[in-house]
Amino acid sequence: MRLSQYFLPTLKDNPKEAEISSHRFMLRAGMIKQQSAGIYTWLPLGLRVLKKIENIVRYHQDEAGAHECLMPTIQSADLWKETGRYEAYGEEMLRMTDRHDREMLYGPTNEEVITDVFRSYIKSYKDLPQNLYHIQWKFRDEIRPRFGVMRGREFLMKDAYSFDLTKENAVYSYQKMFLSYLKAYTHMGLKVIPMKADTGPIGGDLSHEFILLSDTGESEVYVDEKWMETDVSGKDVFYENREQLDKYFKEMTSIYAATDETHDGVGAPANLIKTRGIEVGHIFYFGTKYSEALKATVQNKEGKMVPVEMGSYGIGVSRLVGAIIEANHDEVGIKWPAKVAPFDVGLLNLKVSDQETSTACEGLYGKLKAAGLDVLYDDRDVNAGSKFADMDLIGLPWQVIVGPKGLKNGVVELKKRSTSERNEISLDSLVTTLTTDIKDLKRGF
Amino acid sequence: MRLSQYFLPTLKDNPKEAEISSHRFMLRAGMIKQQSAGIYTWLPLGLRVLKKIENIVRYHQDEAGAHECLMPTIQSADLWKETGRYEAYGEEMLRMTDRHDREMLYGPTNEEVITDVFRSYIKSYKDLPQNLYHIQWKFRDEIRPRFGVMRGREFLMKDAYSFDLTKENAVYSYQKMFLSYLKAYTHMGLKVIPMKADTGPIGGDLSHEFILLSDTGESEVYVDEKWMETDVSGKDVFYENREQLDKYFKEMTSIYAATDETHDGVGAPANLIKTRGIEVGHIFYFGTKYSEALKATVQNKEGKMVPVEMGSYGIGVSRLVGAIIEANHDEVGIKWPAKVAPFDVGLLNLKVSDQETSTACEGLYGKLKAAGLDVLYDDRDVNAGSKFADMDLIGLPWQVIVGPKGLKNGVVELKKRSTSERNEISLDSLVTTLTTDIKDLKRGF
Repeated sequence: MRLSQYFLPTLKDNPKEAEISSHRFMLRAGMIKQQSAGIYTWLPLGLRVLKKIENIVRYHQDEAGAHECLMPTIQSADLWKETGRYEAYGEEMLRMTDRHDREMLYGPTNEEVITDVFRSYIKSYKDLPQNLYHIQWKFRDEIRPRFGVMRGREFLMKDAYSFDLTKENAVYSYQKMFLSYLKAYTHMGLKVIPMKADTGPIGGDLSHEFILLSDTGESEVYVDEKWMETDVSGKDVFYENREQLDKYFKEMTSIYAATDETHDGVGAPANLIKTRGIEVGHIFYFGTKYSEALKATVQNKEGKMVPVEMGSYGIGVSRLVGAIIEANHDEVGIKWPAKVAPFDVGLLNLKVSDQETSTACEGLYGKLKAAGLDVLYDDRDVNAGSKFADMDLIGLPWQVIVGPKGLKNGVVELKKRSTSERNEISLDSLVTTLTTDIKDLKRGF
Repeated sequence: MRLSQYFLPTLKDNPKEAEISSHRFMLRAGMIKQQSAGIYTWLPLGLRVLKKIENIVRYHQDEAGAHECLMPTIQSADLWKETGRYEAYGEEMLRMTDRHDREMLYGPTNEEVITDVFRSYIKSYKDLPQNLYHIQWKFRDEIRPRFGVMRGREFLMKDAYSFDLTKENAVYSYQKMFLSYLKAYTHMGLKVIPMKADTGPIGGDLSHEFILLSDTGESEVYVDEKWMETDVSGKDVFYENREQLDKYFKEMTSIYAATDETHDGVGAPANLIKTRGIEVGHIFYFGTKYSEALKATVQNKEGKMVPVEMGSYGIGVSRLVGAIIEANHDEVGIKWPAKVAPFDVGLLNLKVSDQETSTACEGLYGKLKAAGLDVLYDDRDVNAGSKFADMDLIGLPWQVIVGPKGLKNGVVELKKRSTSERNEISLDSLVTTLTTDIKDLKRGF
């Protein structure tokens, strides 16, 4: 992408409304624009990151055997009255009436609608298990939206819903999602720790939150020091291997980790670390709570109709964009993990007016793209200082810096954003070095 | 995908609420489920088609130099009051108040929000042209939603907005979108005809509708017989070649085509065909209508602030799913064009209980997937008749039919859904034949 033709409105000054780093950097890097309190337009750079995260989540949901569907944002109040949540949900639910005065709402979550889908078609244990997910915008009318996309009102969430005949099978479905989540976070370049959680308004008796450790996190968390060396990735665990999955689940849930809501010191180890974290996922097993209310029953092997066992599984896709920045930035900007970066590499032309420099940049731009890299080429006629500042701000993993002086010696500069390491490198070896390094950064999935 | 593990709830009977073929087949093929009047859940099979269409539209928007962003569904009423459309839009606009009693609405279109984005950042002619698009759900509270996704209330639309300094450049932007649309429809396997249109509530003085000819279409249309042999694809036309693009645009708009709204016989040829069609896109050049109202001005070369010249460009993504079915079906089901088909090929195991048949099917399933094909493998333990009926209903381009009798002679049956042609083919040559044929069907982009 040529920056001169792109829509990347970066800001020099810190917007005063932004209290935390991710919000500040997302506004400054031209990733989002606020339209109303807690409601944002995703500008092109921000949308690229959102889509990458969405696709990683999708990949691991599909791998786990879940099927993607798409429920509408606007729902009839009727189903919510059947479960009693229409009253219970309170002011966080955005309600409206349509032109025929029917009560409608903007879905804050989808247990009701998906259970309605299920009960309309599935009548027999033979068609179980099922796991349906969607990646759709939700609305929760937070009283005080803040922290940018971290606590917005309109937000993108992946929510999955599992349906099983027995509790035992429902727990297996739960464990598959547990694994899928840790694989997905690892894929994004994050270390996320599962913590036993309260079930809150969703209900149920088994629940885990997934917490990204970050000093600026919203919650206080208490974790065993052992987590620091524990490989959570589940990379050699297979969904189909029930025994292996159960062992992995027990391992991951045996090391102490608790939010301040569930932390009570019971079973806490000597080497306890108190830190902060950001919730980036939450999963629930809640049995027959919704299937009973909505009469979602299936015939079991004995021919008896029984309510189906359910769980629900959420990942905050738009929130993850902010959370990743909280965990990956310095004072001048973002440092994207390679797999969610909006582009792989920034190409800086330090002197657009110089024929030789521009020719070299055009050549590199073509070669890097041909090598399969996503390149943001800063071909704007602005000073070098602005180019450095913007590129550090938007935080692409690599920067290739091309100026007349270096070119005289046949070299360009290669800067790694994560470490700020800068090296001169010959024009001839640049493409090979870069593609090797980036492949290395992206290895794993 | 193994059908035994998929979520594909096909229906044997015609749902009585469905008045047209596409609605009937989408319900029967388990593509959608109605949640409220004009509001649907997209089930896995339907979502696959929706995503394919979305991606084709995206591909051609990007090729044309437009940048993807994502505006929110819920918008403040304030911007709409600035343009006067808050009152003007009437009952089709879904309105609500949030918990702080602020007036909000579900965006039925996005001229207001995108112009606000533009005016917040772009101040100089040097940053023009710009074209921003998004693919987002819209809501229009139709008084009588009907025909399934063809006239729903919550629907997926791609809308793009161009910004230029001069009318001349705005017309160039308009022509680029015109070309992008015809390339996209061609890519989907459709022949769509551009027709001069009224501008309606959007306003402006240059507008075209894109109409898919179909006997069951909602509008009467009048077209020169010459369209039948005219290549509309624009396949050798380049966006960057302004002269060539202008010539193409003039050619495409010189052949008579009009909806009943604009048909007046003036300039109509002798060989006029009267038929019906479905609107699958609509583009507008409306000058400074919104930029003046919202004070979206840029500095021109003389240093004077002038309102920016705009156009907007819509494609009904969810509506296209229905429109494509209207134009591609027979009495038993859908006949998907290869590039938007939910899967490339259906593999029918006619006798799951027969070891040899199942082994052969498993082998073919692996080989076809390894060859890069999307395969839906009907491994259910149901009778052959149900399998044939379901496969014809969901309309994948190819069916591979495997039964014990054929296998004794080393052959399977290959059925082409579009023509119902069936041929015996040796197990050995199946994969090669199929991949060649499917590549052929998908050629072009």
